[in-house]
Amino acid sequence: MPDYQAPLRDLHFVMNEVLDYPGHYARLPGGEEATPDIVAAILEEGGRFAREVLLPLNQSGDQEGCRLEGGEVKAPRGFKDAYARYVEGGWPGLSAAVEHGGQGLPASLGLALSEMICSSNLAWGMYPGLSHGAADALRHHGTEAQKATYLSKLVEGVWTGTMCLTEPHCGTDLGLIKSRAVPEGDDGYRITGTKIFISAGEHDLAENIVHLVLAKLPDAPEGSRGISLFVVPKFLPDADGNPGERNGVTCGSLEHKMGIHGNATCVMNFDDAKGYLVGPPHKGLACMFTMMNEARIGVGIQGLGLMEASYQNSLAYARDRLQMRALSGAKATDKPADPIIVHPDVRRMLLTQKSLAEGGRMLVMYTGQLVDLAGHATDAAERERAETLLGLLTPIVKAFLTELGFEATNEGLQVFGGHGFIQEWGMEQFVRDARITRLYEGTTGIQALDLLGRKVLMSQGETLKVFTKEIHKFCQANADNEVLKPFVEPLATLNAEWGELTLAVGMKAMNDREEVGAASVDYLLYSGYVTLAYLWARAVATAERALAEGTEDAAFYRAKRATADFYYQRLLPRTRAHAAMIRAGGESLMALDEDDFARGFAI
Amino acid sequence: MPDYQAPLRDLHFVMNEVLDYPGHYARLPGGEEATPDIVAAILEEGGRFAREVLLPLNQSGDQEGCRLEGGEVKAPRGFKDAYARYVEGGWPGLSAAVEHGGQGLPASLGLALSEMICSSNLAWGMYPGLSHGAADALRHHGTEAQKATYLSKLVEGVWTGTMCLTEPHCGTDLGLIKSRAVPEGDDGYRITGTKIFISAGEHDLAENIVHLVLAKLPDAPEGSRGISLFVVPKFLPDADGNPGERNGVTCGSLEHKMGIHGNATCVMNFDDAKGYLVGPPHKGLACMFTMMNEARIGVGIQGLGLMEASYQNSLAYARDRLQMRALSGAKATDKPADPIIVHPDVRRMLLTQKSLAEGGRMLVMYTGQLVDLAGHATDAAERERAETLLGLLTPIVKAFLTELGFEATNEGLQVFGGHGFIQEWGMEQFVRDARITRLYEGTTGIQALDLLGRKVLMSQGETLKVFTKEIHKFCQANADNEVLKPFVEPLATLNAEWGELTLAVGMKAMNDREEVGAASVDYLLYSGYVTLAYLWARAVATAERALAEGTEDAAFYRAKRATADFYYQRLLPRTRAHAAMIRAGGESLMALDEDDFARGFAI
Repeated sequence: MPDYQAPLRDLHFVMNEVLDYPGHYARLPGGEEATPDIVAAILEEGGRFAREVLLPLNQSGDQEGCRLEGGEVKAPRGFKDAYARYVEGGWPGLSAAVEHGGQGLPASLGLALSEMICSSNLAWGMYPGLSHGAADALRHHGTEAQKATYLSKLVEGVWTGTMCLTEPHCGTDLGLIKSRAVPEGDDGYRITGTKIFISAGEHDLAENIVHLVLAKLPDAPEGSRGISLFVVPKFLPDADGNPGERNGVTCGSLEHKMGIHGNATCVMNFDDAKGYLVGPPHKGLACMFTMMNEARIGVGIQGLGLMEASYQNSLAYARDRLQMRALSGAKATDKPADPIIVHPDVRRMLLTQKSLAEGGRMLVMYTGQLVDLAGHATDAAERERAETLLGLLTPIVKAFLTELGFEATNEGLQVFGGHGFIQEWGMEQFVRDARITRLYEGTTGIQALDLLGRKVLMSQGETLKVFTKEIHKFCQANADNEVLKPFVEPLATLNAEWGELTLAVGMKAMNDREEVGAASVDYLLYSGYVTLAYLWARAVATAERALAEGTEDAAFYRAKRATADFYYQRLLPRTRAHAAMIRAGGESLMALDEDDFARGFAI
Repeated sequence: MPDYQAPLRDLHFVMNEVLDYPGHYARLPGGEEATPDIVAAILEEGGRFAREVLLPLNQSGDQEGCRLEGGEVKAPRGFKDAYARYVEGGWPGLSAAVEHGGQGLPASLGLALSEMICSSNLAWGMYPGLSHGAADALRHHGTEAQKATYLSKLVEGVWTGTMCLTEPHCGTDLGLIKSRAVPEGDDGYRITGTKIFISAGEHDLAENIVHLVLAKLPDAPEGSRGISLFVVPKFLPDADGNPGERNGVTCGSLEHKMGIHGNATCVMNFDDAKGYLVGPPHKGLACMFTMMNEARIGVGIQGLGLMEASYQNSLAYARDRLQMRALSGAKATDKPADPIIVHPDVRRMLLTQKSLAEGGRMLVMYTGQLVDLAGHATDAAERERAETLLGLLTPIVKAFLTELGFEATNEGLQVFGGHGFIQEWGMEQFVRDARITRLYEGTTGIQALDLLGRKVLMSQGETLKVFTKEIHKFCQANADNEVLKPFVEPLATLNAEWGELTLAVGMKAMNDREEVGAASVDYLLYSGYVTLAYLWARAVATAERALAEGTEDAAFYRAKRATADFYYQRLLPRTRAHAAMIRAGGESLMALDEDDFARGFAI
């Protein structure tokens, strides 16, 4: 069975050394309580919870799956109890406002903990996973009465939340939804329709489930401008705010999936279900985006969590498994063969995972500071800058960390050779679980269009410049540092090229808008590699500083430097391919007529 | 449920137009019977068998899996009957020698059919999948008595074959095997040991199973030079050659795997099992390589088959699923949204699969000619050249087509969005089934070492030159062809660079042998992309000739050209990344001490 240790030392490095989280929290309104000691204690406790409570249920949950019986969904054995301990420990409200019953700690701290949950048990993590976003959507767009009814329950964790968007005929294109909401005289509506792919849509972990549902009002304009958001509880709260009458929302069936078997992915039938409008009529998509952006970062963290889990377990196997002698001569002469970690290609697979997980962690925690600042910075300019950068980085966090998360878990499996294909080892579960992350909350293709089309080109490149300027400043500030040269020089070149590629695509897109879609995924991946290169360069700068100042933990910092070397030499060259593909444009994609695709096998 | 049509038109193009199979068969000793008409009829019939008999059992076989009951393995429902029809149709002996009961058709034709089996039902295909190789190993290395006993049964298909190499503690490193063979006075041996990951090690499809088993004799030298090969039947043949006494080889358990659930992957216990030495004592590994090389090409074809199946089904979905409008304006104005095939990024995913499947098909059929010639060419120089090229291309076929096969099936799944993750659609099964192909019969890492270390560098690059010279000649012959320039020019550049990269790694490796392992996988992938680029350039030359001469099928040839454009513009640039990574060398891989890998999470 796989093992897992929360990467506390690395989190300390990322938060306290590279990104100056102590300073960030000290300056952040409401962040004063997150002192380094408190943060360390919480992370340690979170790591223990992940390892001791969630991890033992990961493989059994996958094998057992969920059951739908008489309309009720039973989560795998142990899930309910683990959730009770999660609530008991106060974890659901960690970064929720004190006024709603939360602990008022910064959102970024929740992201660090989220990684641990995803590493130890992704399927379980998807039960409470959307509650925070549901609470946030209500906090931003709900009425005072709605807040009073739902917020503290979600924050406390006694109720969980869902996001009901997708219907059988539409997922990406929500303008097509058919679910209807009919006003009902009083303040309510009656919702009717079918929603699919609803994570934790029905389960036995919490006493109530709060669905946030997109549906159309009778007078709705066509398309995505005619969608409204509703809150639809499984049980209608009674006068005391406790679960009362059963509402007309039921689980029709459970999906049979490739992975995350422990999570109930439900078809939800809304049959004249009582619901309440959240936000203005027809503006539901915009309100839902509050929740969706948070969920997207959450899915990126799933990619990161699985990379780390895969890395740790493949590393343990590589140190243990004896096979062949090193090409340069036997290393473990007392053993019948060398541990496979001596082989360069095994190291390549390990370092791919290591550099992506550690780089991904920096990206997530860098993004976490933006989340904090976008929500709480008192200075309007600082808040606006954080919002801009957050908008730019959200699709990168989501798509880059999940695309590379899938690659990394596959490298982890590959380290095991044929054993990786066997369920018992748990590596193939990481791969199956990782596969969904490239799809839900907007596929990689959708994230890429969001990044290149909506964020970068629609702002005439201004959004991107906020970030490339920051990178440029870092490069300039370190231009004379000989030790950093192998990082700063290629980074500066890539940073400039990023702008050039953007301009090139932008020019083409003025003649043909399809050029945006044609370049988008390569552009997103290119952006991801450069973003991680920036953070890895900062990590090296930090490590070199520690080594220069003298440290008892020199091996840690030297390993950081070596991992950065690997990233720059063995992963970053992928930008050469992506840049060439971006420049190649879309002509070869659009040349074939639809019928031409099938000429090789149609008879 | 997925559908599948054998790509007969494309096979016709590849075999008859690009690779001049009619001429090849006419010149091949024993190939005279494979006239174009016969070949076309066989391929059509094979396609029908794959679609009508095997395809309907693919998803049900995956869901049902195999059962071990009282030592007997039951394959999924329908598998046994399909196998009976396979035997009845004479398929097992298609390319076996007439003297052993086969039809004597060329081996290459068997490869084309093999693709169809892999596309329609990979798990089923693994039951007869190793019989041909087992027969070949016996034909090359067995005694006359062994041939008389086993060959016609394997060729007829009433018995199937296995390959028993791996043991719990060793797979790649066969020098470590513990299975023992003790001579027994007469011509036999008693074999004792445990073998794992034995595909079709036990099943109910055939009346007997012929295991080819690696074990050590009492006087065996240490390591891989002390391994002998034995034939160990499940039932010992009686005097009439029919299954007699039950031998001491039994299935201990079935593996629970990520995919190919319909195939029985067995732990096989040899308990004083009667066996017979095949080939000279201690030379078993060399004898087994006859079988292994064939199996490796077979696994490459599995990658190809899954690419094609994935492509066809994602194409159908992309033409059917309506979602969003084209960025350049609505295309299907009579529908609520456009079919997703209008979107450039969906086309990118489709064309990735298409260009890799069609390119992979050319590679397999190009290799098929080498297999034919290596086995039957009368001219010694021609035979030797074919053997050399076959040795070079075998690891490329195996690893490149399976690495890219996994990517392609994942692109196919991705086209389906969230639905791709749902079992019902069948796309996730292609991905799970494809995952094993990167592992068995030697992982990608092992193939890469075989290519770069054993085939290329050990021959001082001479082996590679045989191939690059052929490419060079093609480029020279077409240098003045304006229409081919966009292909021939980059191909010539890459072909030259291939030699330069080889030299660069070779030089480094003289100082440090770990440099071979450090470069190997990138080198293999680089080699694969250039090899496919060569074949795509030939395809374009063929297509342009047809268009110039006038044809009723112009759309087919224009689609070929467009697909080649895509391959050159949107996939081939990956060589830029691999070349850079090869040149970067292994320093960053070897820098970390073993303990340093774990410094981020150890407490």
